[in-house]
Amino acid sequence: MDLESVQKLDVEDPLAEKRKEFVLPKGKIYLDGNSLGPLTLVAKRRAIEVVDKQWGNDLIASWNLHSWIDLPAHVGQKIAPLIGAAADQTLCCDSVSVNLFKLLICALNINNERQSILSTKDNFPTDLYIAEGVQRLLNNGRCHLELVERHELGIRLEEKPAVLLLTHTDFRTAATFDIEELTKQAHANGTLVIWDLSHSVGVIPLEIDKWEVDFAVGCTYKYLNGGPGAPAFLYAAKKHQEFCEQPITGWMGHKAPFDFDKKYVASKRMTKFLSGTPPVLSMSMLDAALVSFEKIDVQQLREKSIQLTELFLSLLKQSGCLEKLQLCSPKSAETRGSQLAFSHQKGFGICQALAAKQVIADFRSPDLLRFGFSPLHLRFEDIWHSTQAIKEVLDEGMYLLPAFNQRLKVT
Amino acid sequence: MDLESVQKLDVEDPLAEKRKEFVLPKGKIYLDGNSLGPLTLVAKRRAIEVVDKQWGNDLIASWNLHSWIDLPAHVGQKIAPLIGAAADQTLCCDSVSVNLFKLLICALNINNERQSILSTKDNFPTDLYIAEGVQRLLNNGRCHLELVERHELGIRLEEKPAVLLLTHTDFRTAATFDIEELTKQAHANGTLVIWDLSHSVGVIPLEIDKWEVDFAVGCTYKYLNGGPGAPAFLYAAKKHQEFCEQPITGWMGHKAPFDFDKKYVASKRMTKFLSGTPPVLSMSMLDAALVSFEKIDVQQLREKSIQLTELFLSLLKQSGCLEKLQLCSPKSAETRGSQLAFSHQKGFGICQALAAKQVIADFRSPDLLRFGFSPLHLRFEDIWHSTQAIKEVLDEGMYLLPAFNQRLKVT
Repeated sequence: MDLESVQKLDVEDPLAEKRKEFVLPKGKIYLDGNSLGPLTLVAKRRAIEVVDKQWGNDLIASWNLHSWIDLPAHVGQKIAPLIGAAADQTLCCDSVSVNLFKLLICALNINNERQSILSTKDNFPTDLYIAEGVQRLLNNGRCHLELVERHELGIRLEEKPAVLLLTHTDFRTAATFDIEELTKQAHANGTLVIWDLSHSVGVIPLEIDKWEVDFAVGCTYKYLNGGPGAPAFLYAAKKHQEFCEQPITGWMGHKAPFDFDKKYVASKRMTKFLSGTPPVLSMSMLDAALVSFEKIDVQQLREKSIQLTELFLSLLKQSGCLEKLQLCSPKSAETRGSQLAFSHQKGFGICQALAAKQVIADFRSPDLLRFGFSPLHLRFEDIWHSTQAIKEVLDEGMYLLPAFNQRLKVT
Repeated sequence: MDLESVQKLDVEDPLAEKRKEFVLPKGKIYLDGNSLGPLTLVAKRRAIEVVDKQWGNDLIASWNLHSWIDLPAHVGQKIAPLIGAAADQTLCCDSVSVNLFKLLICALNINNERQSILSTKDNFPTDLYIAEGVQRLLNNGRCHLELVERHELGIRLEEKPAVLLLTHTDFRTAATFDIEELTKQAHANGTLVIWDLSHSVGVIPLEIDKWEVDFAVGCTYKYLNGGPGAPAFLYAAKKHQEFCEQPITGWMGHKAPFDFDKKYVASKRMTKFLSGTPPVLSMSMLDAALVSFEKIDVQQLREKSIQLTELFLSLLKQSGCLEKLQLCSPKSAETRGSQLAFSHQKGFGICQALAAKQVIADFRSPDLLRFGFSPLHLRFEDIWHSTQAIKEVLDEGMYLLPAFNQRLKVT
């Protein structure tokens, strides 16, 4: 494999034109779209429109004039096809943490003759923290959190937990679960499922209606490119909605918020899951970013993501780097999301040295290097250059320099 | 009082120069800053910087490089002097609704031998809705919500509720409570207080440390001009912080979020009240808007606010309008926030007819016209022209036209 044959892949790439929709820093290769997706041109224009025209000029009238009030449902509806959800089940609001809190309470109430939440020890920490918080809050013995190894899920489901809470794509290794199969097993045991789709949405085809998923949450600032801290989404299957009593009953979840009734009466629609006023600027950026996904088949994104990831691996192998970096992601693309993780004792230094060579990856304690492959804006040529940079960093040993080993607060 | 003498007030106004910091729509008089504050030039510039430079160019590195990770504490610290709070007690995050949910649970846990939340029937609906939600959630009899008339608070405090939950400035009439006195009464009965400062912060001097307030929340998109749906703030008095177990234990509240520990260990600092990732763009706009409050004494804002409000009333009286509009706000400026409310059967039509004359007020069902007086950007001359417009609308009867009586979804 040489540069020329890699460049040929770009020529043949049916998604190649999508890159033009992004504002990418010159000279950098950005392999961290799994952490924070880049800015799109549509979002850049929208920022000026929302700030100058909508807020600046039209002020309060914008709630109607520019449909700010409908943003949570409208943006939710744009996300719905990416997760395989029919209308009126997906909503954009709050953060993954807050949304998970709401849905966990709902699911525990629906399955209220049961006691426990089952999850894996390697689940995304905030998911586990939120479950812990719910457990502490409902400390009348109604709820306890059981954390198990992945391979134990089947046997532990037979203990009939109230809720199975899992993340589809692991944030470290990108190992994926079989949502359909696990949901089926959970249901066979009378257990409701909540899936966290944060590291999957936008790069892996999902069919959550077809797979009969009960509830889901997800992040929008990774592969959906919604911008830093963009509001998250939540999904509640139609059949459960009327039985959901989400606990954070703010005014936006009222059936008629602007009647200013004294009593809370939950909306009969998905808006019952709303709490406070949405952060309009952040949500508008996400709304704009989702334009990139219109008229695109997620299967196409998945195919390019696998091509990019496999190319990355084979180039690292070709250059001998795989003898120095320990692959922590599944070897098979079938059970892996759109990222690769490698462990290396000096992973932090390598990540910093790569940044100095304009290749942006990320690092997770204690020793994990992560590379994300966002098929909308990455070129195959980027994979060539980034693997070349990795080889240089490893060969030259520059990652050992003290300058590359000063820890920042957060990466 | 004539236009000339009113214009003289502008010449003498020590805050007159502040108006230049705002981007105001040409020709409009904006009396709705109590609902959505206008855009500042600093925020307008910041939008471009955050979107283009920080997100667009610096991408993931911005969490450190531009201190995104510190925004909640940093912005909280900028709000602190406006409410009379010493350092490390104020945090910017989530919405008023979500923050109130967290604080109510904390306060009930601290005062856990008590049962009830006491509030007024006319409290801001979302505050009551959230309290209702907490009551439903803790349905093991641990919590019930008691709603009373304002004048009954004293006597009902003797029943020793766990929490007194009140809004300082009423969103309809702008009637204010005496925070110091009611907090004292509550404490004398062993009751903790949570004050909602949404319609007060930025226009009324507050001394919540001195008044020994336990907890507070507030909105930032009204007089603080943070932008539509800007994240809210919460305050927790130092002495209570270590006893607070807020229930929405997302990763940002962990003592070391980026260690990705399996177990939740709450931060020992105010950041324990954080849940998910903050909406950086919306929070950055608020951060920028708060620059307008630097080097300003809230007392000065209060004085101008009272001047504007009193002038508005006296001009309406002078022109005979007060015979047609029923004042619902307290007559005394001392017990009134920075807004005036009038009831009129055709209040909606009047509000629309005023908008057609470029005077932006707002309407609350069933019959309430509200005018907000934001001292940072309003001129005394604006008060003259807006009261003239009110007189014209009332005299000409244009508010009766069908075109001005078509209800929008939200105002």
